[in-house]
Amino acid sequence: MSQYTAPIRDMQFVMRELAGLDEVAKLPGCEEVSADLVDAILDEANKFASGVLAPLNRTGDQEGARWDKGEVRTAPGWKEAYKQFAEAGWTALACEPEFGGQGLPKLVATAVMEMWKASNMAFSLCPMLTSGAIEAVTLSGTDEQKAAYLPKMVSGEWTGTMNLTEPQAGSDLAAVRTRAEPQPDGTYRIFGQKIFITYGEHDMTDNIVHLVLARLPDAPEGVKGISLFVVPKFLLNADGTPGARNDVHCVSIEHKLGIHASPTCVLAFGDHGGAIGTLVGEENRGLEYMFIMMNEARFAVGMEGVALSERAYQHALAYAKDRVQGTEMGVRGGPKVSIIHHPDVRRMLMSMKSQTEAMRALAYVVAAANDAAHRDPDAAVRAENQAFVDLMIPVVKGWSTENSIDIASTGVQVHGGMGFIEETGAAQHLRDSRITTIYEGTTAIQANDLIGRKTAREGGVTIKALIAEMRGVLPLLAERGSDESFVAIGKSLESGIAALEAAVEYVLATYGKDIKAASVGSVPFLKLLGIVAGGWLMARAALVSSQRIAEGSSDEFYKTKIVTSRFYADHVLPQAQALSYTVVNGAAGALALDEAQF
Amino acid sequence: MSQYTAPIRDMQFVMRELAGLDEVAKLPGCEEVSADLVDAILDEANKFASGVLAPLNRTGDQEGARWDKGEVRTAPGWKEAYKQFAEAGWTALACEPEFGGQGLPKLVATAVMEMWKASNMAFSLCPMLTSGAIEAVTLSGTDEQKAAYLPKMVSGEWTGTMNLTEPQAGSDLAAVRTRAEPQPDGTYRIFGQKIFITYGEHDMTDNIVHLVLARLPDAPEGVKGISLFVVPKFLLNADGTPGARNDVHCVSIEHKLGIHASPTCVLAFGDHGGAIGTLVGEENRGLEYMFIMMNEARFAVGMEGVALSERAYQHALAYAKDRVQGTEMGVRGGPKVSIIHHPDVRRMLMSMKSQTEAMRALAYVVAAANDAAHRDPDAAVRAENQAFVDLMIPVVKGWSTENSIDIASTGVQVHGGMGFIEETGAAQHLRDSRITTIYEGTTAIQANDLIGRKTAREGGVTIKALIAEMRGVLPLLAERGSDESFVAIGKSLESGIAALEAAVEYVLATYGKDIKAASVGSVPFLKLLGIVAGGWLMARAALVSSQRIAEGSSDEFYKTKIVTSRFYADHVLPQAQALSYTVVNGAAGALALDEAQF
Repeated sequence: MSQYTAPIRDMQFVMRELAGLDEVAKLPGCEEVSADLVDAILDEANKFASGVLAPLNRTGDQEGARWDKGEVRTAPGWKEAYKQFAEAGWTALACEPEFGGQGLPKLVATAVMEMWKASNMAFSLCPMLTSGAIEAVTLSGTDEQKAAYLPKMVSGEWTGTMNLTEPQAGSDLAAVRTRAEPQPDGTYRIFGQKIFITYGEHDMTDNIVHLVLARLPDAPEGVKGISLFVVPKFLLNADGTPGARNDVHCVSIEHKLGIHASPTCVLAFGDHGGAIGTLVGEENRGLEYMFIMMNEARFAVGMEGVALSERAYQHALAYAKDRVQGTEMGVRGGPKVSIIHHPDVRRMLMSMKSQTEAMRALAYVVAAANDAAHRDPDAAVRAENQAFVDLMIPVVKGWSTENSIDIASTGVQVHGGMGFIEETGAAQHLRDSRITTIYEGTTAIQANDLIGRKTAREGGVTIKALIAEMRGVLPLLAERGSDESFVAIGKSLESGIAALEAAVEYVLATYGKDIKAASVGSVPFLKLLGIVAGGWLMARAALVSSQRIAEGSSDEFYKTKIVTSRFYADHVLPQAQALSYTVVNGAAGALALDEAQF
Repeated sequence: MSQYTAPIRDMQFVMRELAGLDEVAKLPGCEEVSADLVDAILDEANKFASGVLAPLNRTGDQEGARWDKGEVRTAPGWKEAYKQFAEAGWTALACEPEFGGQGLPKLVATAVMEMWKASNMAFSLCPMLTSGAIEAVTLSGTDEQKAAYLPKMVSGEWTGTMNLTEPQAGSDLAAVRTRAEPQPDGTYRIFGQKIFITYGEHDMTDNIVHLVLARLPDAPEGVKGISLFVVPKFLLNADGTPGARNDVHCVSIEHKLGIHASPTCVLAFGDHGGAIGTLVGEENRGLEYMFIMMNEARFAVGMEGVALSERAYQHALAYAKDRVQGTEMGVRGGPKVSIIHHPDVRRMLMSMKSQTEAMRALAYVVAAANDAAHRDPDAAVRAENQAFVDLMIPVVKGWSTENSIDIASTGVQVHGGMGFIEETGAAQHLRDSRITTIYEGTTAIQANDLIGRKTAREGGVTIKALIAEMRGVLPLLAERGSDESFVAIGKSLESGIAALEAAVEYVLATYGKDIKAASVGSVPFLKLLGIVAGGWLMARAALVSSQRIAEGSSDEFYKTKIVTSRFYADHVLPQAQALSYTVVNGAAGALALDEAQF
């Protein structure tokens, strides 16, 4: 059985020493946030994650969710765990106090979210989708909708879903065909089929609040003719309690590679006269509302990358310390040793560890910027932080999830033959991680957003500011003189930044005149930015650690962090040159063939 | 349903224009091999692979092999397909004519093997393991053993297995504990448990020939005290037919991530008095015999990497041509297009295609060298070829299989959300490929062999000769003048070779004095050698293609090959620098932490 314990020390370090928890705590509305409070929250969340959710992860994978005549039964223990989760208040952590939420900063909520996702990703998807629905209604709903749905969703009594995809409309939401017909009473009747609806049906709560993209009659073609509707599973009685069954039904669930315990539903709307819904916000602005939420959802999926990487690392580390095989390399006839003694196993573990820490650092720094973007009293500071968040969300999403597949696969490799046996549990992390680069926008969709809206459209202002900030670390590294680790870190980071700059120049010069040529390099560009940003934060982490040691700290954590940062510089950052080369030179070869030549 | 058609044109190209089929056909014993014969064999094999084996691949995955009270039932259709396979003579293709084989060169057998593995990897494992057993008995068996077992295994009437692993003895075979007790009649009684035995039990043939590593009483400790035994499932009657049931029983099969239709067995030897076996070769030399065979088996698993990559590519390509989503990039309001029009999908497909072709080229070139190493009349030529084969087997195995995981994963990505749904079949390739970097020696075991026995021990003689040969291509590329593709190929290949040279120098300088430091870089070194060797062969392929075009060929294949080679140079070869940097600089960071600091 795979155990999980939240990496609280690293979480604290990143929050306090890289992401500026103290600064976040000074923001309006965060006055009650203190290091002690945060520690207490992390401890409680860790207890729930490791004690309740982690043990259900493997059984959930084995049992899966089951469909039977339109009903979905979640895996054994799921319903009880969800009840405990809601009762403990975890669904309300980051929500608005106005509707029963605790209003904690995103930075803190992010660390907690990492725990849910690491301990049991399939479970975590239910509150994650509910958060999205809460946000949609909070931002764009009517007062009636807010009053009817928000308190129930914030408390976890009801869950929420996001209904975007249809068979012909995946990445291309312009192709949505679901129809909404206005009724005399101001409601709408919804007709159509939605697929890939996470927790679209389940047995854990007595209502489910579906947010559904659909077209009004005579709506414009394409993305500007899509509206957003709330369609509850059970219509509400006058007193707000669930009443008549609405005409939305789960006609099947998917048999998937991973996240077996998370029901992925096909939902039929209106097969028996029309599902009754109400409009959210204005007509034809549904996609716009969705995109506001999408940033949150994309960030959350990026956290799945971080979380699954952490889980896979812990799993592999435990095995590597336990499994005895062979003797110490270079020692003939010596005693048998655990495989963590073998250099390649160590390389694999360090690779998992260093990348996971870099991804966590980046995600939490973005979360803190998100807090500033929402709460700072100074509009200029808000705007600057928002621009940074907008730039980095596709990176947190795309880079962390792409890495998580490799990292989970490396975890399997550490286990050798046992990794391929499902009983071991290592393979589940690989299977679960494989969805993360696909849903909430594939890596290509993220990369497209990154080079287009987030870089080229604004002439690279934000990314250049970020690069300048990264460059600011180089002299601090140089100040450490001949310290071997800092020399190595400085050298790789400097090369990495230069590689990133070359790629940025290429994108800025090319995007407007040859969008296809720029786009061939978009995914390599996204990975490049992730790798270099991760290297920048790992360098900052090493500098802070060195400072703490100089101040007299004997915490082993700081020594370890410097080593991990150096490993990242020697093993991960050097990929920056290759990616940059490909961004700058890779278009011609990729685009030369006709379809028939493939 | 995923289709498969063997990439016969590329196979022919590689065999004839890169691997020297004409030269192979001149070797003693290969006189009957002609281009026409080879084409006829490829055609027949393709019919069997695409018509019989490929359709069983998905059902085999779904149904799997089933264990019931010691018996294993293979998936529906398996038994019939195996019978056809044997009757058509496919089991005998590369075997010695003396025992009923057709004695075809390894180069031809390799192309055919690729088809079995691509069409149905789980099925292909049965004849692959049987080949290993045939080779063991051929090389080291007694005349009685040869007469009793070889004709039956060559004809496919019986299958063979390799019994190495035990729970405590995975990569570390020195830890084998299975015992063999000599009997007065010259036979041995075997006692012990073996795990991970591929096709250790099944219902397709009326006997199974187990080759088993075990220790004699008073055998020396470690690897020099292991002997090899033949232990048939059914003991043979005086007339050679299967008689009494032997005391070897399948006590369970594993529930695995992939290759579900290939039963992975736990075999108990001697629970009821002892399994009767006979000694192969001399006492205590079992591991040595195994290692001779291991080269073949490792090469075959390398071919699984090539084959699964090809299958995943075909699968993704078909989807990309069929799936309509979005409009042509840069064209607003245009018609919807198939996703192969999108630059990132194209990048993914080209990445799959170019790497698969590079891996195929390397594997076939090694196969041809293997033919020369076995058959050339000149001992010096044999030795030179054998050294090249020995150097490259770990690369064919490690590099192709590591790539196949990424390539299969990219195949899933091309499918978007559908890739995560098992029904689509794309995920199966990822699941199946995940074992290939583990069995027959993990990538670390291959890499260890590569930097130690194959490089450092001989002072780098063979690898330096290979590098010189690679360098020989650079002036030929330069002769193409300002042709953009050849400039790009030449530039990347030259940098790649330089990166490889730096890494070779590091390994040679470090291995003897700090084996751990050298070993940290062993897997990056293996990948580096694979990438650069692949780049060298893709450059040769581009040169040949350019020559054919200059000679007047209008075959689109040649134009496509130049583009694919260029893509490889721009997208794959640049990784060489990063890997080289890590080999040379990566040890300190990887080895610095104490176990407790993890």
